[in-house]
Amino acid sequence: MSAIEARLRDLGITLPSPAAPVANYVPFRRSGNLLIVAGQLCIGPDGKIADKHKGKLGGSVSVEDGREAASFCAVNLLAQAKAALGDLDRITACLRLGGFIASTPDFTQQALVMNGASDLMVGALGEGGKHARTTIGVPVLPGDVCVEVDAMFEVA
Amino acid sequence: MSAIEARLRDLGITLPSPAAPVANYVPFRRSGNLLIVAGQLCIGPDGKIADKHKGKLGGSVSVEDGREAASFCAVNLLAQAKAALGDLDRITACLRLGGFIASTPDFTQQALVMNGASDLMVGALGEGGKHARTTIGVPVLPGDVCVEVDAMFEVA
Amino acid sequence: MSAIEARLRDLGITLPSPAAPVANYVPFRRSGNLLIVAGQLCIGPDGKIADKHKGKLGGSVSVEDGREAASFCAVNLLAQAKAALGDLDRITACLRLGGFIASTPDFTQQALVMNGASDLMVGALGEGGKHARTTIGVPVLPGDVCVEVDAMFEVA
Repeated sequence: MSAIEARLRDLGITLPSPAAPVANYVPFRRSGNLLIVAGQLCIGPDGKIADKHKGKLGGSVSVEDGREAASFCAVNLLAQAKAALGDLDRITACLRLGGFIASTPDFTQQALVMNGASDLMVGALGEGGKHARTTIGVPVLPGDVCVEVDAMFEVA
Repeated sequence: MSAIEARLRDLGITLPSPAAPVANYVPFRRSGNLLIVAGQLCIGPDGKIADKHKGKLGGSVSVEDGREAASFCAVNLLAQAKAALGDLDRITACLRLGGFIASTPDFTQQALVMNGASDLMVGALGEGGKHARTTIGVPVLPGDVCVEVDAMFEVA
Repeated sequence: MSAIEARLRDLGITLPSPAAPVANYVPFRRSGNLLIVAGQLCIGPDGKIADKHKGKLGGSVSVEDGREAASFCAVNLLAQAKAALGDLDRITACLRLGGFIASTPDFTQQALVMNGASDLMVGALGEGGKHARTTIGVPVLPGDVCVEVDAMFEVA
């Protein structure tokens, strides 16, 4: 077992089967040492999006549920990276996460929600998991999910 | 004629003159094998933004018109790539598309709209056109257009 | 003094101490010749976000104040780049800026606001500062700031 998957196991996380794209694109694309992973929705370990992870922060979704949704997005990014690389230990760095938080116009704690993704990535990858990050509010996301996250990794 | 332009011709598409940036920036920037193209608006073959492509999905813009708008954005990305490279056949891959869909807060079919851009890119570039993609809803876009798309290409 | 810092001085701008990330991520990450800088908020020279830079364009924030906020974001991106590189003259190009403008659903002049960031970057870096750019409206940003900007630089 790779060191990164061992860390995930210690966090109680099993990588799911990566989600198939919902349209005419691919879940990841590699160029040289860059691995670009498509925006991942907050699909849970059961392969479904929970009702509590649909809707908007500042509306029906609590910050704590949003954090969990963001962590699911991060797990799904890693599942795609494993599909791309075979072995997660070939990730040398998470360069960037882009966090999209479905928000009512008066919700301003997007950073707290996105921490769910950042903490998972650092928990899984250690120092290499420390990433530059851009977090924004959006009015709505595909399928009414509350969080979407995409990533750029450096890989060996 | 390049192979990619021949495919575009077979799709009934002529590349327009690329749009000039509306401000103090440039339409594309290259670094090594990466070509980064600025966000393109849904300017049509006549050089104008049609009224039906202004406004929001979930509001005055239908999914079908949104799809067409997204395909126009993709054509404009290719027009910029041609200006950057001289020959579209120097594109080795479309690594990533970012899709921004102007949406009312209850419109959740952004993926269907963005397919207009993805299908065009794969139709033009074939296997090399299969890209990682991030699609989000936004409340409003510059000039009230309904779709904006940006891209990162790998080039030779 | 580096050539770029001399230009900034001529523009009347002193680089601030770069802002610490508000969560479990880092302000920049380098991979080869790419430097990716996290989304920067419109923190002013006094280390604070002015009340006039909170809220939304089309609401309480004027286009002129939005432009200033965008220029502050650009200064903060350069402060992070200096922290990453030691010397700003190691920047060979600003490849891309991503501009996120907190907007009411009927505000469509995001480009004018984002010009505050683009003009600052070109003023500081000259030809190398000319970047590809993607500007979108968003409903709300972390901490209720009116503008956030992120960047990808090419560095030597």
